[in-house]
Amino acid sequence: MTGLFISFEGVDGVGKTTQVERLREYLESRGRSVLVTREPGGTALGTALRQLLLHNVTDGAADIAPRAEALIFAADRAQHVAEMIRPALDRDEVVITDRYLDSSLAYQAGGRELTADEIRNLSMWATGGLLPVRTYLLDMDPAQSHARLQHDEDRMEAAGIDFQNRTRQAFLDLAAAEPDRFRVIDASQPIEAVWSAIRSDIDTLTAQGGTR
Amino acid sequence: MTGLFISFEGVDGVGKTTQVERLREYLESRGRSVLVTREPGGTALGTALRQLLLHNVTDGAADIAPRAEALIFAADRAQHVAEMIRPALDRDEVVITDRYLDSSLAYQAGGRELTADEIRNLSMWATGGLLPVRTYLLDMDPAQSHARLQHDEDRMEAAGIDFQNRTRQAFLDLAAAEPDRFRVIDASQPIEAVWSAIRSDIDTLTAQGGTR
Repeated sequence: MTGLFISFEGVDGVGKTTQVERLREYLESRGRSVLVTREPGGTALGTALRQLLLHNVTDGAADIAPRAEALIFAADRAQHVAEMIRPALDRDEVVITDRYLDSSLAYQAGGRELTADEIRNLSMWATGGLLPVRTYLLDMDPAQSHARLQHDEDRMEAAGIDFQNRTRQAFLDLAAAEPDRFRVIDASQPIEAVWSAIRSDIDTLTAQGGTR
Repeated sequence: MTGLFISFEGVDGVGKTTQVERLREYLESRGRSVLVTREPGGTALGTALRQLLLHNVTDGAADIAPRAEALIFAADRAQHVAEMIRPALDRDEVVITDRYLDSSLAYQAGGRELTADEIRNLSMWATGGLLPVRTYLLDMDPAQSHARLQHDEDRMEAAGIDFQNRTRQAFLDLAAAEPDRFRVIDASQPIEAVWSAIRSDIDTLTAQGGTR
């Protein structure tokens, strides 16, 4: 049972995808089996649930209730853990997920009706308490990450810089609350410098025989 | 805010549908507005979620995880409460639901991986703690209710008499734990006698100016 569960967090445009791939290649070159996955999505059930939310099956007759929405997100995560993440960890693989429960917490910070504690408790129950042994928070000023995001500008514009700043701060608060699990990495550095910081940490972690 | 929230519980074939209709007619004849609803179903989102479970969107690749399933049931109930039940109660109507959270508890008693407390906590969060002011448990020997069920025999046969007996006992245990909310009614009596017992109780309840 030396499976290793790692998550990457941070707002869009900070370079998570690039670093996830670097880490995968590095660990595979050292003989580890690696499963790369992401949220939302990952399972057929999760995809179907997300479609329900996106297409608002209530069809204008009524909005999806905040608690119903939170329960559906939690169901997606429960299936992701049960179907993909836990089995891979049981096979002693490394699982790297691009976003996990911290994204739910950060993105709904400043949300309306539900508290962060409620969302966290729901996710912890959904996953049977499974947390990553390490979470890399790629952090940078949203004004900079915004400039990197050519493919997704409309959405960023719509969401607004205030929202991005609040979300960044929510991630930093989560990291400060769990310093053993999180590593905050300055993502405004060149890609090689970011990767170097992650590699150095992962070398330490695997030398310790990291467990879940 | 004198809306009145009433649920009917019991295994299939005990006559819930008949008594729900009697109660609706009786209350409407006394000038009350009545919303009759049921679980599962009731909302468009709930119907879509049930379809996902029935058609097992994982498509044989993987089973739906028990926690994911429980979260989806809870999402259905959350939407049912937010979209239909609470608004009707806020309009001072009577809401009569054919099955509610006690059915989740009774039918998964003897279930495998989750405890009744977990299911109950999830439902209570989903509904914002909304419980009926009165729950009528229509109780009879499953061998008798079985004989009444002509339309659904295959399913009953498949489920088996042991399962029916366990579910009946689970309902009785829930009623014993909350005697203020539950009324256990002998459903092996003639329909008129069952209705008489319910009417007598509802007269007392409404005379007290029943609240949620």
